[in-house]
Amino acid sequence: MSKGTLLYAQSGGVTAVINATASAVIQTARRHRVKVLAGRNGILGVLREQLIDTSKESLATIKALAHTPGGAFGSCRYKLKSLDVDRAKYERLLAVFKAHDVRWFLYNGGNDSADTALKISQLAQASGYPLTCIGVPKTVDNDLVLTDCCPGFGSAAKYTAVSVAEAALDVAAMAETSTKVFVYEVMGRHAGWLAAAAGLAGKTASDAPHIILFPEVVFDEAAFLAKVKQVVAKVGYCVVVVSEGLHRADGRFVAESEGSVDAFGHSQLGGVGPLIAATVKDKLGVKVHWTVPDYLQRSARHLASKIDLAHAEAVGKAAVEYALKGMNGVMPIIVRTSEQPYRWKIRPEPLANIANAEKKMPANFIRKDGYGITAACRRYLGPLIRGEATMPYGTDGLPEHVRIKGAPMGKKLPSWQA
Amino acid sequence: MSKGTLLYAQSGGVTAVINATASAVIQTARRHRVKVLAGRNGILGVLREQLIDTSKESLATIKALAHTPGGAFGSCRYKLKSLDVDRAKYERLLAVFKAHDVRWFLYNGGNDSADTALKISQLAQASGYPLTCIGVPKTVDNDLVLTDCCPGFGSAAKYTAVSVAEAALDVAAMAETSTKVFVYEVMGRHAGWLAAAAGLAGKTASDAPHIILFPEVVFDEAAFLAKVKQVVAKVGYCVVVVSEGLHRADGRFVAESEGSVDAFGHSQLGGVGPLIAATVKDKLGVKVHWTVPDYLQRSARHLASKIDLAHAEAVGKAAVEYALKGMNGVMPIIVRTSEQPYRWKIRPEPLANIANAEKKMPANFIRKDGYGITAACRRYLGPLIRGEATMPYGTDGLPEHVRIKGAPMGKKLPSWQA
Repeated sequence: MSKGTLLYAQSGGVTAVINATASAVIQTARRHRVKVLAGRNGILGVLREQLIDTSKESLATIKALAHTPGGAFGSCRYKLKSLDVDRAKYERLLAVFKAHDVRWFLYNGGNDSADTALKISQLAQASGYPLTCIGVPKTVDNDLVLTDCCPGFGSAAKYTAVSVAEAALDVAAMAETSTKVFVYEVMGRHAGWLAAAAGLAGKTASDAPHIILFPEVVFDEAAFLAKVKQVVAKVGYCVVVVSEGLHRADGRFVAESEGSVDAFGHSQLGGVGPLIAATVKDKLGVKVHWTVPDYLQRSARHLASKIDLAHAEAVGKAAVEYALKGMNGVMPIIVRTSEQPYRWKIRPEPLANIANAEKKMPANFIRKDGYGITAACRRYLGPLIRGEATMPYGTDGLPEHVRIKGAPMGKKLPSWQA
Repeated sequence: MSKGTLLYAQSGGVTAVINATASAVIQTARRHRVKVLAGRNGILGVLREQLIDTSKESLATIKALAHTPGGAFGSCRYKLKSLDVDRAKYERLLAVFKAHDVRWFLYNGGNDSADTALKISQLAQASGYPLTCIGVPKTVDNDLVLTDCCPGFGSAAKYTAVSVAEAALDVAAMAETSTKVFVYEVMGRHAGWLAAAAGLAGKTASDAPHIILFPEVVFDEAAFLAKVKQVVAKVGYCVVVVSEGLHRADGRFVAESEGSVDAFGHSQLGGVGPLIAATVKDKLGVKVHWTVPDYLQRSARHLASKIDLAHAEAVGKAAVEYALKGMNGVMPIIVRTSEQPYRWKIRPEPLANIANAEKKMPANFIRKDGYGITAACRRYLGPLIRGEATMPYGTDGLPEHVRIKGAPMGKKLPSWQA
């Protein structure tokens, strides 16, 4: 074994393939004879000195993580503030790193986590502790800047496009005497990437989804209702995809959940789907149905995209390689090198350029009428849902998910109080 | 071609595999050189003399129906009342049958449709018109009597069990700092078959789903909340599966949608999931999330059960064979001939024994505390979700669904007014 250990932690909302990244991290580190510890519940486990000794897991278990959704080591929503405000926490992290001889820290998350990894690396440098910090990308929201896309998004996108296509056939079959308008709510607080992915389900104007309500486009109820009416008259039914982040002209979310916020200060959303459905029912008097897939869209490993899985594994592998080379404060990002055929590679990007920034959909990805995607958007999204990342099912017909043993490392420090 | 045509129609809510039944019907009839017409939007298309000439569809299209969800010919919610009340409609049906030389009528639906098929056969007999009527089973609700199970149910059951298992891994990963209680709403107005299927996702008491709220068990809010609290304390999180048909002691549905009813006189339900989630949030003060898969659960052909697909095809094939033998007024039902290994066969059952009856869950399928399934229930449900009914994806990563041409038969009768 090399000198020092590598610490891996998962952060924020998990995805269908974040464990595939973990699997690649651990397998790559093992090939380099580096011991990997994992934070139980992300950075919180580091603060609490709750570390999992991954060397106690069999290779079979580590490999099986690649087809197990969720976050095998536990994730968390726990945002560290500035170095000034949260100094004690950053110093605790460093103390835990030192106690367990952590020389490489890989933080697998979104832009908040990139920021945390960057700050830790700055503190370590200032205090003369040799630590290499790497951000590893992950988010179904696809909102990290500079990277072509984010691991986890492609699978959620595929889930969304396939589910919309399937449900639309159901609605089409029943529309004559039953549901005429079907509303499908997708995740995405500020960026309509998953809403846009639904657009891949249809190829012509009469295909579902007929209307996409993006968070990038201010909701105009009257215009929306007129469009629904027009589609129902023409097609016989109407499939509407709505982003949880849909908002009104004054900036308020259409479905603001009584102003409650999560640990990162984001509003807690959910329920815009039923709200839009109720509006259609009340104003147009047609039968409506709605779905809110919620966590299903980000945990559906059974329907993961093969390209997305490959991305997730590649960033995990590159992260370890960058770390061992001492490339401090970077994130392996995905670069699209060719559109047709689709080709990509991984390269390092400084965390400072990624932390806290948010990628919105380009304006030319949304159709002029605001209700659909453009050809440019299709060209971008298309490759991300290609291929089926097959996975083993047991004889009982259920996916063969794996559970880690999660053997804890012995504690070396006094316990920590937040 | 034999003398006479065979008329096939789809009825009620569609499923992931009802088109596989249609595919088997048409292929079997073609082998017997019998021409198949299909009602556009079920029985409504027959009343309107909107019949599709399936002989214009290629064999490739007919075969591809087996992996296309929805109802390819259109279905309907349109209940015919008694022969006395709706005499004119029944006579119109018979007139359309005579005009198109229909000698065999296959109605693919649930217990309402079995009743309709039976009444038509009675009227035909009384009027001396040689017609053989067959009911073909289908319903995700699994509530037809006498048959071991209903085609469509196994796939919805598999979708439910897999989705609960996947989402539970997501919740488990995030519970420390985020969602502690996740509520999953399943279909099932009066019978908890799909709710029970969710139970297949877990093997031990600490596995999700931790609580199932069945329509068969009166909802006791205080006891439920105490149970949630207990599970969260023990496991760290709690996954609740709730049936849309959950009701209170006075018989009212927990989520009654302002008393609106569908064409069959059923209450329109939906939304018990968010309601239960809000109750947990308000009373226990923990973070909750909820999902309502709605139509996704009955259209997810991408996750269909192999056994269910085999059942769907077998009843279609048998229906044609029974019809051509003149076995009037029967339904091909599924009989379980062996539990281990699971074996089954098809046999005819008089429609009179099936029409309008509803199969509830046996009492010994629900655990004594009312919140889970028993070993007997597992033995029954287990085989129905086994095997994966794979299907082709295009290079674009989307399922290769087929659309029929739907060439209309020329009309021979004056138009019909309801």
